[in-house]
Amino acid sequence: MDKLTRFGVSLEKELLSKFDLHIKKQNCPARSKAIADLIRKELVKSEWDKGKTVVAAITLVYDHHKKDLISKLIDIQHDTHGLIISSQHIHLDHNNCFEIIIVKGAPQKIKSLADKLKSVKGVKHSSLNAATTGKGI
Amino acid sequence: MDKLTRFGVSLEKELLSKFDLHIKKQNCPARSKAIADLIRKELVKSEWDKGKTVVAAITLVYDHHKKDLISKLIDIQHDTHGLIISSQHIHLDHNNCFEIIIVKGAPQKIKSLADKLKSVKGVKHSSLNAATTGKGI
Amino acid sequence: MDKLTRFGVSLEKELLSKFDLHIKKQNCPARSKAIADLIRKELVKSEWDKGKTVVAAITLVYDHHKKDLISKLIDIQHDTHGLIISSQHIHLDHNNCFEIIIVKGAPQKIKSLADKLKSVKGVKHSSLNAATTGKGI
Amino acid sequence: MDKLTRFGVSLEKELLSKFDLHIKKQNCPARSKAIADLIRKELVKSEWDKGKTVVAAITLVYDHHKKDLISKLIDIQHDTHGLIISSQHIHLDHNNCFEIIIVKGAPQKIKSLADKLKSVKGVKHSSLNAATTGKGI
Repeated sequence: MDKLTRFGVSLEKELLSKFDLHIKKQNCPARSKAIADLIRKELVKSEWDKGKTVVAAITLVYDHHKKDLISKLIDIQHDTHGLIISSQHIHLDHNNCFEIIIVKGAPQKIKSLADKLKSVKGVKHSSLNAATTGKGI
Repeated sequence: MDKLTRFGVSLEKELLSKFDLHIKKQNCPARSKAIADLIRKELVKSEWDKGKTVVAAITLVYDHHKKDLISKLIDIQHDTHGLIISSQHIHLDHNNCFEIIIVKGAPQKIKSLADKLKSVKGVKHSSLNAATTGKGI
Repeated sequence: MDKLTRFGVSLEKELLSKFDLHIKKQNCPARSKAIADLIRKELVKSEWDKGKTVVAAITLVYDHHKKDLISKLIDIQHDTHGLIISSQHIHLDHNNCFEIIIVKGAPQKIKSLADKLKSVKGVKHSSLNAATTGKGI
Repeated sequence: MDKLTRFGVSLEKELLSKFDLHIKKQNCPARSKAIADLIRKELVKSEWDKGKTVVAAITLVYDHHKKDLISKLIDIQHDTHGLIISSQHIHLDHNNCFEIIIVKGAPQKIKSLADKLKSVKGVKHSSLNAATTGKGI
């Protein structure tokens, strides 16, 4: 666990009381935690802009009855196996599947993988969800 | 599988050729697939606005050494077990964990669960990633 | 001008030094200013969610040669004149115009106005850009 | 005005009827207009990613009583005068101002200008709103 450091912040009184009210409504236990969360969110965005190693979850919703869909998705994943940590599959109903693929690597490679998966016929929805390795933040 | 229907679209010539170039670069196999993707993305956004049943992936990055963190995360998940389909856990390094929780239900309930998880001390990053049940789209 | 208040924040050492580096690169003059900015951004988002009075800029890019476009845009704006503070017009080239409409009011009304303007034939691009009245933040 | 071209699109029946309902609610006059809007939105995003010449509106909310704020904002704008087309100023209340600066140029330069303006002490909120020159789309 990292060492804590303490520092002072100057803020308009009214702004601070609004923020305190806001984080109370969100069940946030402490002001320092709320501020640290805002800071981390900002830094994670910048990890992605700078091309550092990041973690992400790619989600896919697809109709598994579409011809060749499953084999194409697997082919694409095998071609980029270095990026993929694991994947998970949910049967939403008779036709629809929800798949989550967890990846770690350079943002550009992750985006390109997400584009390829999205372009397979039968994939109805996909999203690329930025996260972080958590290192140093 | 749904029945296909065919209809005509009028578009500026230059706009269409730019779009064709754009989808070619994204490896999209066909214009109809590309247009259907844009339409589905728009409809999924509106499912969330209207409070329909949706699917989502909540991601968490946390330091599992933080006291009581794991038990708090589990408590919160059990309190809302009806929403949660499954969860998956990745050990990123000695300290950092990446957890993906797949949920299905009303957008407001999903957002509230994501807020609660995010507010636990030790959670460094979280995101709520909108997807869809895939029904009728 | 609001009175300043000073309070202490506890943060992981490494997180703080990363944040300091980040704000230095963005030319931010002081840590308190950077933290206040993150807090205000968060509060402005919540003003929009809660339906409080907000300020926004609606941008439109359109081809002014399209029949009836200008008169339709003006009609829509007059129907909701209470919302609109002012508008500004830029001639981008022979065909294309860029118009910025500044509005103040309830988020739902602003969104509905933006939808109406966007739906006029000849409008090529539009965006609704959330800001704030600045009151109390 | 550009020449129109007509082409056929194949879509699942249920998806199309959902889309028709969706655009009716948004007062969109025709299916072709709705599809063209989605395509343009996608292309404008890609103009920004590729670094093409774009148009944008930078909004600022600030307290004009803050010392040196006005002169700093003007200095920054003069340093990058080639980018700026015009600006507009609204007096929101006794303290708060809303300023909209319309810019045209390379995305990176526009982002850097927006960062500089945002970092001036007294600026409470800022946003960078992507639009397009409208050329060829």
